[in-house]
Amino acid sequence: MASEIPDIVIGRLPVYLRELSRLSEEGLEITSSHQLAERLGISSAQIRKDLSWFGPFGKQGTGYNIPYLREQLKKILKLDHEWPVALIGAGDLGRALARYGGFTHRGFRIVMIFDNDPAKIGSYIGNIQVQAAENIEEQIRAGQIQIAMIAVPTSSAQAIADTVVKAGVRAILNYAPITLSVQNGVRIQYIDPAAHLQHMTYYLG
Amino acid sequence: MASEIPDIVIGRLPVYLRELSRLSEEGLEITSSHQLAERLGISSAQIRKDLSWFGPFGKQGTGYNIPYLREQLKKILKLDHEWPVALIGAGDLGRALARYGGFTHRGFRIVMIFDNDPAKIGSYIGNIQVQAAENIEEQIRAGQIQIAMIAVPTSSAQAIADTVVKAGVRAILNYAPITLSVQNGVRIQYIDPAAHLQHMTYYLG
Repeated sequence: MASEIPDIVIGRLPVYLRELSRLSEEGLEITSSHQLAERLGISSAQIRKDLSWFGPFGKQGTGYNIPYLREQLKKILKLDHEWPVALIGAGDLGRALARYGGFTHRGFRIVMIFDNDPAKIGSYIGNIQVQAAENIEEQIRAGQIQIAMIAVPTSSAQAIADTVVKAGVRAILNYAPITLSVQNGVRIQYIDPAAHLQHMTYYLG
Repeated sequence: MASEIPDIVIGRLPVYLRELSRLSEEGLEITSSHQLAERLGISSAQIRKDLSWFGPFGKQGTGYNIPYLREQLKKILKLDHEWPVALIGAGDLGRALARYGGFTHRGFRIVMIFDNDPAKIGSYIGNIQVQAAENIEEQIRAGQIQIAMIAVPTSSAQAIADTVVKAGVRAILNYAPITLSVQNGVRIQYIDPAAHLQHMTYYLG
C-alpha cells in the first residue's frame, strides 16, 4: 500500500511535522486541519486527505492531538532514530551546512565531511575533521551511511554521486545545479536557489 | 491565458533552461524531447506538453533549436534582464549565498545585504557592505527591489518578511524553516534541507 501514496503527499508530511513542532513549542496540545490550513496556506480538505492515507489521526470535532500526530508522522517518515549523513564539499556552502543547527533536532547528523582541496583536508568544521575525497567510498561503506549531501562544483557532482551510490547511499540532497543520473531505488532531492528564483520571476511584472 | 498554466509546469521551466545551457556548453545546437527526457528523468511526453503551453518550439522530427529555445524560455521566465536581489541575513548561510557564483549568469545579482548584528554591520562580503536591518525598508524601496532572500533565524523570519513585503518585494526565497504568511500576490519559495531529507527517509529501509 505504501507505494501507492503519491510522492507529493509524502513531500508535504515534513511541512506538517514542522508546523506541529512549532505549535507544540507555542504550548498547544490540540490542533485542527483548519488551524494547520490557515498557518500553512494549504486547504484543510487537502490536509485531512493527506493524513487519511496513514490512518485516522483525529475524530470529527475533536481535532488532532499534537504530540500523538507528531510521533506518528516521525514514525511514517522513519525519524524515530537519527540518520547519519555524509557531506561532500567543504566550501562556503558545505561549511554553512556543517554548521547549520537545524538538522539534529529533525533527525539528521552530519558525521563525515569530504573535500578534495589539500588546504581543507585535515581541518575541522565543528568537531568533524575534513577527510580526503579519495576516502569517500570506503568511509561511507564502513559507516553504512545511506544519506549524502552533495555541495561540490557542478563539474564533479555526477562523479561524486556515482561514488556515494556505489558505497551504499540511497538518498542524495544535491546542491549542484545539475540533474544527476542514478540507478533506480536511489532518491535525489535538488536545492538550486537560482531555479527557485526563476520559478518566481515568471509571475513578476 | 498565462494564469491558466499550472504552477508545476512553470517550476519545470528553470530545469529545462538549466539543461539547455549545459547542452549548449557541450557544443550542441539541436536537442529533442527524448534527449532532454533521458538527461532529466522526465518523460518526453511531459516535456513536449509543458513546452506546448508556450508555443511550437520544434517541428516533429527536427527537434529543438537550443539557442532559440533558451532565449524563449528566458523571455517566458522574464530573465531577459538581470534582477537585483536583497539578501537578509549575513550568517554562515547568508555569506555562502552572497559568495555563490551561480546567480549572475542565471539572471540574479545580490545588490544589498542586511543583518542586525553590530559585529557584521559595516563589514564587506565581496564588494557589498552589510547594512543595518533597520535600513531594510528604506533601501529596498529606494532600489525598487522585488526579490528578497531570507536567511535569518526562524524567530525573526516572519517580521523580516512583513518588512520586505511592505517595501515592495513580491518574491521571497525563504531559508528559515517556517511557513511565512504574506499577502496575496507575493510569491514564496522554501528551501529547507531538513524537510528535503525527511521527504527521502520515508523511502529508506
